[in-house]
Amino acid sequence: MIYADNAATTKVSEAALAAMLPCLTQVYGNPSSLYAFGQSAKEQLEDARARIARCLHADPKEITFTSGGSEADNQALRTAAALGAKKGKKHIISTAFEHHAILHTLDALKKEGFEITLLDVHENGLITAQQVAEAIRPDTALVTVMFANNEIGTVQPIAEIGAVCREKGVLFHTDAVQAAGHLPIDVQAMQIDMLSLSGHKFHGPKGTGVLYARKGIRLENLIYGGAQERNKRAGTENLPAIAGMAAALEESVAHLSETTEKLIRQRDRLIRGLSEIPHSTLNGDAVHRLPSNVNFCFEAIEGESLLLLLDDKGICASSGSACTSGSLDPSHVLLAIGRPHEVAHGSLRLSLGEDITDDEIDYLIASVKDVVTYLRNMSPVWRSLNEGKQPFVLP
Amino acid sequence: MIYADNAATTKVSEAALAAMLPCLTQVYGNPSSLYAFGQSAKEQLEDARARIARCLHADPKEITFTSGGSEADNQALRTAAALGAKKGKKHIISTAFEHHAILHTLDALKKEGFEITLLDVHENGLITAQQVAEAIRPDTALVTVMFANNEIGTVQPIAEIGAVCREKGVLFHTDAVQAAGHLPIDVQAMQIDMLSLSGHKFHGPKGTGVLYARKGIRLENLIYGGAQERNKRAGTENLPAIAGMAAALEESVAHLSETTEKLIRQRDRLIRGLSEIPHSTLNGDAVHRLPSNVNFCFEAIEGESLLLLLDDKGICASSGSACTSGSLDPSHVLLAIGRPHEVAHGSLRLSLGEDITDDEIDYLIASVKDVVTYLRNMSPVWRSLNEGKQPFVLP
Repeated sequence: MIYADNAATTKVSEAALAAMLPCLTQVYGNPSSLYAFGQSAKEQLEDARARIARCLHADPKEITFTSGGSEADNQALRTAAALGAKKGKKHIISTAFEHHAILHTLDALKKEGFEITLLDVHENGLITAQQVAEAIRPDTALVTVMFANNEIGTVQPIAEIGAVCREKGVLFHTDAVQAAGHLPIDVQAMQIDMLSLSGHKFHGPKGTGVLYARKGIRLENLIYGGAQERNKRAGTENLPAIAGMAAALEESVAHLSETTEKLIRQRDRLIRGLSEIPHSTLNGDAVHRLPSNVNFCFEAIEGESLLLLLDDKGICASSGSACTSGSLDPSHVLLAIGRPHEVAHGSLRLSLGEDITDDEIDYLIASVKDVVTYLRNMSPVWRSLNEGKQPFVLP
Repeated sequence: MIYADNAATTKVSEAALAAMLPCLTQVYGNPSSLYAFGQSAKEQLEDARARIARCLHADPKEITFTSGGSEADNQALRTAAALGAKKGKKHIISTAFEHHAILHTLDALKKEGFEITLLDVHENGLITAQQVAEAIRPDTALVTVMFANNEIGTVQPIAEIGAVCREKGVLFHTDAVQAAGHLPIDVQAMQIDMLSLSGHKFHGPKGTGVLYARKGIRLENLIYGGAQERNKRAGTENLPAIAGMAAALEESVAHLSETTEKLIRQRDRLIRGLSEIPHSTLNGDAVHRLPSNVNFCFEAIEGESLLLLLDDKGICASSGSACTSGSLDPSHVLLAIGRPHEVAHGSLRLSLGEDITDDEIDYLIASVKDVVTYLRNMSPVWRSLNEGKQPFVLP
């Protein structure tokens, strides 16, 4: 099996598992308990917090543990909305291709009286800091722009956006769920006020994430209850998962430059191979993209059939994101970069793991070529395309 | 070490760990992915859901996975509040000794215009169905009463309360975090509309819980984003933890009657032993209490010193709950049952594990006696008590 869906989730690394196991079976005390057995859990919790903070160039006090990226995104937006509302600021700037954890929270805030501006991400899947600067108004409470897109992998100019926001005195949040462990992150240098990440996207466990919030930002509770996480996130601290996440993030960050170099080479080999397929288009910018991400549209192909036939060949891939795979709608990300409905249905995302080999890349190319050819041979749409008719036009 | 703080958290059982490990390292696919590798994760997820539903006498469709008990409590209350508000019903009935996940959410709802009635739990830590019946008004949106208290272990007449609420057409939620896996639960027979539980309180892992909601109750999202959990709880499903929770709950329920019988015998042996300490009082009803729970107040004793000296003797115990241990305030639960401030400070909770032995019970008794005597010998308050003065009176 070639697991090429690492943007959906990753395998827990040996280092992460090794960090988790003792917390499950030995240091299982409640970190909020007074006795030594609980306090040793507390020490491990604070150690994990410090190590994660270091990976982000943050202070440990700026790290709040959540149950994952979605919760962190929700809490960040709720926090900015509450802070903004107090000052009469009820305008939020985001982009049209954010993750649904952002977009659906923005929908909820809209119903509560907030005005939302979604910036156009253009055909290459990028926004500019200038777009942000032009959209900021006196009543802007927040700019939230994802670090790297989960479907097409484009990486935004986060430091430039951070500089614009800081200069204009507007809070800046970034959903870094796809970026953490895969791209260098420095919340200070990039002037990020809030950042969300998820443990299971970089070989940590599921069910844990982080909301970084710069000192001075008073978080709004999403979950009320006990006094955990400085009263800002109730619920017994999930030490096993947090310890696993810290180990995984440290390991990813430690090997980041070598992994990146290797993956970019393999990603580009894969992109070159798939580009040979007629009527295929790479989605998203070729340079400003995650080292692991490849996303193509194939005309006259139905994404679901493509995935099922690739599955038969032992390839795990996706069309759009796992979070929306229950839906029949085409990807909102592909629509946001201007792909027509029919073409957006024929998309394929391959997100590579760090251990992928050149042979596996070549197998991926050959398999996708085979499957696309097979499906097109059965397709009336493809036949009409080949007869010179153009049932739809790529932008 | 004697771990007598199982109400704070429990050790992950072998069965739970055995269920988790393959999900961490083998079946790690995203349950929302289309390929077989993701679908096998999906199957395990639905299998866990069905097994948990069976333990509660619920339908699998009525089970929503959350990150824990606090999140489930928050979501239940937000759901009932939203449903009530639509009908102009903004009155909620609860009790004075709920967990803070309930009380602090009620505080937030109060600020949003809800009126909250907190029923008196009396000296024995119990409410009656009649109290509930008398408090219900035409504008009551919800009754939320905890199944078993986390500090003093008293078990409420849930089925009777359920019958009253069903008859009056009022939603009934119960925080069953301390009850699940420890007491028989039948949501149908008990006429419970919503119920919260937490995996790590019955030897499942931390970071996972359940919100049961009767068919027809449309949940309000606490976390917006992907379409997981029928669109009602966004975030990649935490299959390893969920599988562990299902295994742990099944195991607990399977052995419930024998465990209960054994624990009640040992709990009562412990209660008898500690009752021999002068100026000691059992908190909470002696009969309607969790089989694992013992909670005493010792006059003229400071709870924190008691815990630290017991820790020196290898005993993990608590004063109040772990969730509030960062606070200097006396337990709101002990105040709710009428203990004076000074006495509430001297409380001790011992929550027994299923594997505790008679010898360990005897060691607990001897150790608490020793420590209480030692602390009292140093205490001016105790000397004045013994000289016939009564600095405070037990109710």
